[in-house]
Amino acid sequence: MPGEQIPHANPSPVSSSLPDSVLDLAVNLPLKDALSESDRESVTKFKRAADYIAAAMIFLRHNILTQETLKPDDIKPRLLGHWGTCPGLTFIYTHLNLLLSKNPEVKALLTVGPGHGAPGILSSLWLEGSISKFYPDEYPMTLEGLTNLVRGFSTPGGFPSHINAETPGAIHEGGELGYALAVAYGAALDKPDLLSVVVVGDGESETGATAASWHCHKFIDPVTSGAVLPILHVNGFKISERTLPGTMDNKELLSLYSGYGYAVRIVEGVGSESSDPKGDIDANLAASLQWALKEIRSIQNDARNGKPRAKPRWPMLILKTPKGWGGPKQLDGKILEGSFHSHQVPLPAAKKDETQRKVLEDWLKSYKVEELIDPKTGELDEAIKRIIPKQRMGQLKESYDSRTPLDLPDWKDVAIQGVNNQTNEQTKSGEQKGQEEERPQQSEMKAVGAYLQKVIEKNPETFRIFSPDELESNKLDATLDESHRELQPDQYTKGNGRIIEVLSEHICQGLMQGYTLTGRTALFPSYESFLGIITTMTIQYSKFNKMAREVPFRGGPKATCGTIPSSINYLETSTWARQEHNGFSHQNPSFIGSILNLKASDARVYLPPDANCALSTIKHVLNSQGKVNLIVGSKQPTPVWLSPEEAEKHCEKGTGIWEFASTEGGKKPDVVLVGIGTEVTFEVVAAASLLKKLVPELRVRVVNVTDLFVVGREGSHPHALSEAEFADLFNQGGGVVCNYHGYAKEVQGLLFGRDGVENWSVEGYREEGSTTTPFDMLLRNHVSRYHVAIQAVTFASKVNDEVRKKQDEVVGELERRIKEHQDYLQEHGEDLEGTYDTPVF
Amino acid sequence: MPGEQIPHANPSPVSSSLPDSVLDLAVNLPLKDALSESDRESVTKFKRAADYIAAAMIFLRHNILTQETLKPDDIKPRLLGHWGTCPGLTFIYTHLNLLLSKNPEVKALLTVGPGHGAPGILSSLWLEGSISKFYPDEYPMTLEGLTNLVRGFSTPGGFPSHINAETPGAIHEGGELGYALAVAYGAALDKPDLLSVVVVGDGESETGATAASWHCHKFIDPVTSGAVLPILHVNGFKISERTLPGTMDNKELLSLYSGYGYAVRIVEGVGSESSDPKGDIDANLAASLQWALKEIRSIQNDARNGKPRAKPRWPMLILKTPKGWGGPKQLDGKILEGSFHSHQVPLPAAKKDETQRKVLEDWLKSYKVEELIDPKTGELDEAIKRIIPKQRMGQLKESYDSRTPLDLPDWKDVAIQGVNNQTNEQTKSGEQKGQEEERPQQSEMKAVGAYLQKVIEKNPETFRIFSPDELESNKLDATLDESHRELQPDQYTKGNGRIIEVLSEHICQGLMQGYTLTGRTALFPSYESFLGIITTMTIQYSKFNKMAREVPFRGGPKATCGTIPSSINYLETSTWARQEHNGFSHQNPSFIGSILNLKASDARVYLPPDANCALSTIKHVLNSQGKVNLIVGSKQPTPVWLSPEEAEKHCEKGTGIWEFASTEGGKKPDVVLVGIGTEVTFEVVAAASLLKKLVPELRVRVVNVTDLFVVGREGSHPHALSEAEFADLFNQGGGVVCNYHGYAKEVQGLLFGRDGVENWSVEGYREEGSTTTPFDMLLRNHVSRYHVAIQAVTFASKVNDEVRKKQDEVVGELERRIKEHQDYLQEHGEDLEGTYDTPVF
Repeated sequence: MPGEQIPHANPSPVSSSLPDSVLDLAVNLPLKDALSESDRESVTKFKRAADYIAAAMIFLRHNILTQETLKPDDIKPRLLGHWGTCPGLTFIYTHLNLLLSKNPEVKALLTVGPGHGAPGILSSLWLEGSISKFYPDEYPMTLEGLTNLVRGFSTPGGFPSHINAETPGAIHEGGELGYALAVAYGAALDKPDLLSVVVVGDGESETGATAASWHCHKFIDPVTSGAVLPILHVNGFKISERTLPGTMDNKELLSLYSGYGYAVRIVEGVGSESSDPKGDIDANLAASLQWALKEIRSIQNDARNGKPRAKPRWPMLILKTPKGWGGPKQLDGKILEGSFHSHQVPLPAAKKDETQRKVLEDWLKSYKVEELIDPKTGELDEAIKRIIPKQRMGQLKESYDSRTPLDLPDWKDVAIQGVNNQTNEQTKSGEQKGQEEERPQQSEMKAVGAYLQKVIEKNPETFRIFSPDELESNKLDATLDESHRELQPDQYTKGNGRIIEVLSEHICQGLMQGYTLTGRTALFPSYESFLGIITTMTIQYSKFNKMAREVPFRGGPKATCGTIPSSINYLETSTWARQEHNGFSHQNPSFIGSILNLKASDARVYLPPDANCALSTIKHVLNSQGKVNLIVGSKQPTPVWLSPEEAEKHCEKGTGIWEFASTEGGKKPDVVLVGIGTEVTFEVVAAASLLKKLVPELRVRVVNVTDLFVVGREGSHPHALSEAEFADLFNQGGGVVCNYHGYAKEVQGLLFGRDGVENWSVEGYREEGSTTTPFDMLLRNHVSRYHVAIQAVTFASKVNDEVRKKQDEVVGELERRIKEHQDYLQEHGEDLEGTYDTPVF
Repeated sequence: MPGEQIPHANPSPVSSSLPDSVLDLAVNLPLKDALSESDRESVTKFKRAADYIAAAMIFLRHNILTQETLKPDDIKPRLLGHWGTCPGLTFIYTHLNLLLSKNPEVKALLTVGPGHGAPGILSSLWLEGSISKFYPDEYPMTLEGLTNLVRGFSTPGGFPSHINAETPGAIHEGGELGYALAVAYGAALDKPDLLSVVVVGDGESETGATAASWHCHKFIDPVTSGAVLPILHVNGFKISERTLPGTMDNKELLSLYSGYGYAVRIVEGVGSESSDPKGDIDANLAASLQWALKEIRSIQNDARNGKPRAKPRWPMLILKTPKGWGGPKQLDGKILEGSFHSHQVPLPAAKKDETQRKVLEDWLKSYKVEELIDPKTGELDEAIKRIIPKQRMGQLKESYDSRTPLDLPDWKDVAIQGVNNQTNEQTKSGEQKGQEEERPQQSEMKAVGAYLQKVIEKNPETFRIFSPDELESNKLDATLDESHRELQPDQYTKGNGRIIEVLSEHICQGLMQGYTLTGRTALFPSYESFLGIITTMTIQYSKFNKMAREVPFRGGPKATCGTIPSSINYLETSTWARQEHNGFSHQNPSFIGSILNLKASDARVYLPPDANCALSTIKHVLNSQGKVNLIVGSKQPTPVWLSPEEAEKHCEKGTGIWEFASTEGGKKPDVVLVGIGTEVTFEVVAAASLLKKLVPELRVRVVNVTDLFVVGREGSHPHALSEAEFADLFNQGGGVVCNYHGYAKEVQGLLFGRDGVENWSVEGYREEGSTTTPFDMLLRNHVSRYHVAIQAVTFASKVNDEVRKKQDEVVGELERRIKEHQDYLQEHGEDLEGTYDTPVF
């Protein structure tokens, strides 16, 4: 059959054509005496117990110690969790415990990448007492607790099959693959004492996020940050095919990861076709972990004693064990252990098929769990207890209770003064002359940059900026006056720079997440169009966040301990409305939509209309906890509409009438003009001004929305306006002209269910763009002042006879201006400098 | 000043601690005699001309050959395009032309990764006559044509600063970085004669997409596919910092890329701190390209002659040239060439600042362009013409005119028979007994898999499936009966497998794009929750697509040549509604929203409600051109509602009344129930059935929407229903209860502007999930039959007095059932097998 895949045994790949000299890259260690007999007893027993429990979690609901012959009713109705990766994870966990029990001063955090391997981690966590600590009622250290753990796994209310916020010690949602490595690096930053161990699956290592993240050690300053120890776990197979590392021989693996910059130690020695004749993999891993710790200390000591190494080669382990190691060897002639057939559940019909059930029983009994866990009391064997360390990985405070709030300066210290809406108030019923010209101008990002400079100054060890190579382009360069970019192998780097720039949004997001969940605060500024690259990472983070609020140990409403971490914070700029010069590929506001779909309790989207509002907003988000904050602003100089005091009030409410731009303060309007976003609000104000000249009879109210969620129907979001507030603000006159920065469908979706929505017109980015002038971008997307004004006249005509009389004439005039603009552009486009409103007729 | 970055000269990184033996990995070549004097003259002159034109494009609008002293008015008002990367690109282009002119049988496609380097490519394309070929009116091979090219660049209507669909020969939107490499690999598949050359920028190489894609050669069968030659262009800097490769010395680079599996040749020899004492980089690149071609042919010949090499090491070049090579050396003591200061525009004030203008003039004059292009006629120097190959990279048919439509089998051959809605019609006014039980059941994915098997059979060289390791889990395993997974280093691979599985959505997307834009058709099946990983890649592809329709050579409505390629096709399954077992991280329908925001002309979203509709849809999308198609379906067995004939009609219309499930065929309904998506439609049908039992007086109409865009307001999408059709179908009775698979906001946004939207209730995925039973997933997200029924009764009560009388009682009963379910789950959850509707009370 052409489709039949041969069930490979453990990989024995073709030898590569790399020269043997590559083998010089391998770290070799003497294994003799690496493990005392007593330690060997401990690790063997801990692992046996952990493997047994993991297997039981996948299969059993009764008879959980397999003391009786297995009956169909003992087997779960649905078998979940992936056995394939579990024995490797318990092996690592066991030996890390040995390492930590020998080195009690080491604080280790474990991040686990491989998918659906939760049974292996949960079983280890139960053995070390961490599950009981956080779930004393459900999972005490008794037979009953163990029964609940096994029986409840992957059923409603029990632990799921992948690592998540319910898992003690975890700082990472483990369902979607690829993010563990960068997260582990983020955790190590600014924690000089932390050993951040991360297990990367070989399937997971195929992802872009992981492939990029191997470089992250280049951002680690050995003086001020901790260390990351990556363990690439190669068992050779994904669901039903080899992994890429599974096809690579040792020469290739050594070459690749040495090229990334690591000192690589390959740990192998088990399995039918092992290349290590000694085969003592326990001694091997024990010695390798000790070596890694020694290497790390040595690199750190050198650097901390003023003798930093150039390009230190941080240690890394490649652990090769068979897939489903220790599980059933084969079934009906099909190889299980060491093949992809044990990736998920190796005996899927164990409930109904007697043969499979017998194989399962033999397998489970082979662990002799009764020697390890007292079947009467649940007491653990002494050898197991000996290697449970004092500082357990499942209970490290850094993972659940470690937030240091930022010491935040007053944003008004850098606010833009000189805004005088009172003066404008006086002139506004008059000719509106010079309104815009008199206003101070400031780039929102310049203002935010000045504020961030102060944040860095006051928080030199607990605040970081992760950015994909656009900090200066995004006008946040003031931050570089206080700190600098961190890039260790650059000979000019001074270390401990607060800014990491790398052209991988995946790395930025992973670092931010690891940094934030271990108690610090970060900001991720980016070009608007490219934040969508990490859409799913944000979603996964938000899922972790949501669950964290519901568990008893992460500071949520029902928690008995823990702290809610700082929010993660995105700052989008270089928005489509000012990407006229970089062209169509740089014009994309889609990330807003990703945030809108997150749980309302977490999600926040702010579009501050000017620099003072941007300042108020950045202060607010850096101070907040447990949210996913997105700020969208402009990097170009734009008018400052509100004084610092006005901005503060406006941002608190999230929206408000801009009296200075409205007719008689916005009372009794014929039409309401709404701006959501910097440039589109500018056009709304310009439209109001234009209308006052063309149709003085038309009464406008100008509203700005800075907190997008206020428009959603009452109750849909904590910030949503009440129905009464909404009606007061918007449902006035003949209609509402809404000029929105993102896709119109987003606001349209939010408005669903609001009264009066049939009288709204919403325009936003229409996916029209090119290299052109800024104003042409607005024209092409129908959010220019002319488009706003035309719609305004149309709406106002419904309620104002004077306006209706002039409607055709005014609309004709506005359409003429649009055309004139387009013609001018066609003729003179090549000569235009491209300022914002070139030339307004 | 702490923030001041030292303006690095060309990288001279600290030597790594890797052993010297790594240098054995380097490919060494004799350079003597690599370049004849005549060839040297040609490449020098071609490159000089290309560099001059590229620089002129960035700076000049008049005096484009710098024949006069530069005046302020000669300089563009806004300077765009990045000079930094251009000279490296022209260098590569020049030498590829030399290679092709020496080897006229070679068909080479060039994919260019580095951002904003378009001037270097466009200038080369103009010199070889490819721009004139496709834009004969705007850019003829005359001085006028050249003037238009230079003057129009990065102005409205001119070429933008990055590669896009307007660029002849391009198959890739070059604004967002990271995708070039995978795209180039996709193009090479099944084109045994193609040489797919790809330039990867060193900044770009930091991205996850690129980092993962280096492994792609492992999917290339040297017998049936062409070759990819990657050129990593290291100029050391991003916008304002070193790149990661810029900090790596040759040992590290060799180690890394050899580890990926390449035979690496480092091409260097220019710049102040060159490590190549000979410094003859022209000879070096010429020899290196010849070597690469020879290597490729040798690998291919061996394989094609039945002697395939195990793990062939395909060639790869690492080209090191200074940033802004050949540009001004310094300005005011600041180093320009070889530093990040020449990343973008090296003389930004050339228009206003006389000193800068003078530096610019000297620089431009240094190229002596008058020796290369006749200032009177525009005629090119003979030496330049000598290396313009017969098969020019800008005119390769594969890049714009090569679609081979699939030979598509009749989907009805694998359709599910035995659906008899006539029988049901007869019983429907009665007790509805056994309605569901009598229906045939089929997994949509199983059906699609069976069809795809036939597609593969009939199209063994023009159809491919790219999948992130979930083909079998997604129940598409029938495809493996006709073909197999391709993974070259796996000793069991037979070559030419139609299925590539790799756990990188980025690679899958890149391969699909390259494969499709060179004339073939592909399918990308995926777990629903993880397709969002490539959201921005899809957006960038769609931007390319949109522009391709507007240029004169890609088969669009205004084109004089070219063909519109096949659509790109996504198949989402393992949806949230059936990811109860994998838990919260696997529950996410957000990719639909990404497609909704694309241009309406391109975007298609289908949610076929059963296997026959899924078959009709897959046939349709595989036959379509120029679209981005998303199909969302279930992999679990579900009822087949429509006969093949009914399904065909239903899919053509995109929506329709399901008479068999409605009261009296859906006439005069009190309420309209709408299902969009498989499981949620199942619940709608169940709700209708339930209502008929509980409130026989209530008249329901059941509507299914299979083509999501039909609900959008008239004119918003080619498939949107007219207002009249919409009103006929939906606006009946007391309201519309819409049960949607995705986020409710999406449908709510689409409905904006439709009449009667205030009478709609829309529910969808609420971001609520866990490991639980399938039915509990529906309950948690308020899309269960009970939720539908409650809302239906509420709406119907507005128009039907009989219903109103029983409203409280029926709603009470339905709420009781919800609670009973929840209680049952709490008590028995651990014992439930988790079938779809366990247990319905």
